[in-house]
Amino acid sequence: MSDLFEFIENGSPTSVPGFKASGVVAGFKRSGAPDFALLFSERPAAAAGVFTTCLFAAAPVRYCRELLKKGNNIQAVAINSGIANACTGKQGLDAVRKTAERTAAKLGISPDSVAVASTGRIGTQMNMDIISRGLDLAVPALSSDGGNDAARAIMTTDTVPKAAAVRVKIGGVPVTIGAMTKGAGMINPGLAGLHATMLCFITTDACIESPLLAEMLEKNAQNSFNRITVDGDMSTNDTVLLLANGVSGAVIRKGTPEAEVFENALLAVMKNLARRMVKDGEGSTKLVTIEVVNARSARDAKLAAESVANSLLCKTAWFGNDPNWGRIAAALGYSGAAFDPDKCDISIDGLPVMTRGGDAGTPESVAVEHVKKPEFTIRCDFHDGDFDYWVWSSDVSYDYVKINADYHT
Amino acid sequence: MSDLFEFIENGSPTSVPGFKASGVVAGFKRSGAPDFALLFSERPAAAAGVFTTCLFAAAPVRYCRELLKKGNNIQAVAINSGIANACTGKQGLDAVRKTAERTAAKLGISPDSVAVASTGRIGTQMNMDIISRGLDLAVPALSSDGGNDAARAIMTTDTVPKAAAVRVKIGGVPVTIGAMTKGAGMINPGLAGLHATMLCFITTDACIESPLLAEMLEKNAQNSFNRITVDGDMSTNDTVLLLANGVSGAVIRKGTPEAEVFENALLAVMKNLARRMVKDGEGSTKLVTIEVVNARSARDAKLAAESVANSLLCKTAWFGNDPNWGRIAAALGYSGAAFDPDKCDISIDGLPVMTRGGDAGTPESVAVEHVKKPEFTIRCDFHDGDFDYWVWSSDVSYDYVKINADYHT
Repeated sequence: MSDLFEFIENGSPTSVPGFKASGVVAGFKRSGAPDFALLFSERPAAAAGVFTTCLFAAAPVRYCRELLKKGNNIQAVAINSGIANACTGKQGLDAVRKTAERTAAKLGISPDSVAVASTGRIGTQMNMDIISRGLDLAVPALSSDGGNDAARAIMTTDTVPKAAAVRVKIGGVPVTIGAMTKGAGMINPGLAGLHATMLCFITTDACIESPLLAEMLEKNAQNSFNRITVDGDMSTNDTVLLLANGVSGAVIRKGTPEAEVFENALLAVMKNLARRMVKDGEGSTKLVTIEVVNARSARDAKLAAESVANSLLCKTAWFGNDPNWGRIAAALGYSGAAFDPDKCDISIDGLPVMTRGGDAGTPESVAVEHVKKPEFTIRCDFHDGDFDYWVWSSDVSYDYVKINADYHT
Repeated sequence: MSDLFEFIENGSPTSVPGFKASGVVAGFKRSGAPDFALLFSERPAAAAGVFTTCLFAAAPVRYCRELLKKGNNIQAVAINSGIANACTGKQGLDAVRKTAERTAAKLGISPDSVAVASTGRIGTQMNMDIISRGLDLAVPALSSDGGNDAARAIMTTDTVPKAAAVRVKIGGVPVTIGAMTKGAGMINPGLAGLHATMLCFITTDACIESPLLAEMLEKNAQNSFNRITVDGDMSTNDTVLLLANGVSGAVIRKGTPEAEVFENALLAVMKNLARRMVKDGEGSTKLVTIEVVNARSARDAKLAAESVANSLLCKTAWFGNDPNWGRIAAALGYSGAAFDPDKCDISIDGLPVMTRGGDAGTPESVAVEHVKKPEFTIRCDFHDGDFDYWVWSSDVSYDYVKINADYHT
């Protein structure tokens, strides 16, 4: 399918016709870095979202869930970084409502078509003066090449902005999908729904009704953002929004070949950003793919892969260039997955390190060379069934501890 | 109950009459530190054990499980640190059998009365020459005050040896319970059974049959070793053995007041060592007690407490003296526990930081003073039921990463 779409250089949400964006310094961050972003669709757009499953969902998450439930079209998204507006009660929800109202007034649109997202410190009430200052600056700055500015403004501990876009032909008509994301910490794939501490805003000019949009987004999130882990923590603010403004005129209906082409292109953008989130994970120096294959059930494969991906002992070993397959075996063994340890093989980038539950005899000096690389794959073969699962993980370094022991926005 | 028993100064497994121990340099550790311990009971002792639930259980764990299943009395335990003898297949099991045979021959006892335990690197085959050297040195060194030498020889990344003993009167007869443990890393309370990366050897001169011994050990392990976490990883080698040689003549029968007194004294020793294992956890600078109270079910209370205790974001915040209650709330919220976030209170050493799901208004500068302390308690009150749970956790520091990125025994 990969030849059906192509990535656009410096792609972003505003690579998609009909979308504008901006990123400005509102004043949330002490560092003076950009901290308020606005995404605007000239036409009201069909919308879908996936959100954190944390019970302490932030006020903007609760607000957006309700908004999408009503089936509203969305025309703007106001995003701040610095204050999460989580654990802020009624006052927090009021702040989101006011943010939507002020954004709508500034843009001359309905408040019901404004989504809001936040990231930053939990438990602090929103500063509405800073929101207003952000809007005063961001509305006039809206631009059809502002996507990368917006991507920069939603960063917290991210070291690089993360945006992408692909172009795909749907029935001969060029369709674009753009996106931006922030990640870095509180990142974990989970049990159900979306489990990464992240914000992601996806735009497209395809013409798709929101139920199909929601279906595609949920399915693709399971195979992209839900496959990543940095620290095993899940955020109160995880939000992925997908807006389709229909500007291209390419109509996509459920069950058609066009829907499949679009869904694959959408997955490519989401996987591209998911991968980059892990690579830019807090203190991360490595991207490690964990594959569990031939497990007895999908659940066993997932439990086992996520156990390795979240093992602090494995993650610190990878940081230390230590191929220590014993820690991988231990993490598989305590994962809760059912398998026969005497049948289990482990390989690192194709190099066998454990065979049938014991040492494969590969000299450690050889295995070290693979673990030193910035990217490698650990494959665990249970030889025990037909079910596979994979996860992208990062290592845990001194910098992870530094960032999270010192983090005060 | 606490007035019914007293801790013995410099107590150890050999504080108990009839037990001898030694700890020697066999040659497993490159550092030249003691790495082989022997525990010997002059009389065959009734025995009970709890072990890791990891599917890749080490060879000595598999061996001891079988030994205890047969109901054998135990007279000696041979323990090495440096090689875990896990993921070593048939050859690993043969090595355990040989170790038991050589130990038995040296001591003039039956091989069926010798237990074996190992800790160290996973995946390396046992070096039987070093075992023999260890036995050559350890047997003549056996001494009735060798318990603390043995405690030192079972250490891996532990910074201090950990042993204890209590004396308790049972029907007017003085009874002693002694123990030694090693912990430090791969420590996590789990789902069922024993889930801490640890070795613990407990001795007593009470006269108790093994079924009652097993019952008491399992119950007490749930309330001591299964309440601790350092890094959320579970080991292949976790072993807790309890030997009762009956030398005191104090007979303890199920359901009697004597059994209750003994069980409480045993719990005191186990909790003492569990606590010290967390305090001496790899890179640990703090002991944090997590209490979840008034949850809807026992399962909800446990899920919530363990989620906070294992949250990397909480643990790094504690290291950084950051009271960041938002991270605690997030960890409760994604734990899978069912509760009403709008009723949830969080306090640190009695100081409210979150009230009914929102900021309690305590200035951060005040909360910081509590989190700076080497020990503090985080209490999460769900106001939603009658079930409580608690866990002891540690922080995650630069040293944790250093130890685990560099660890090669």
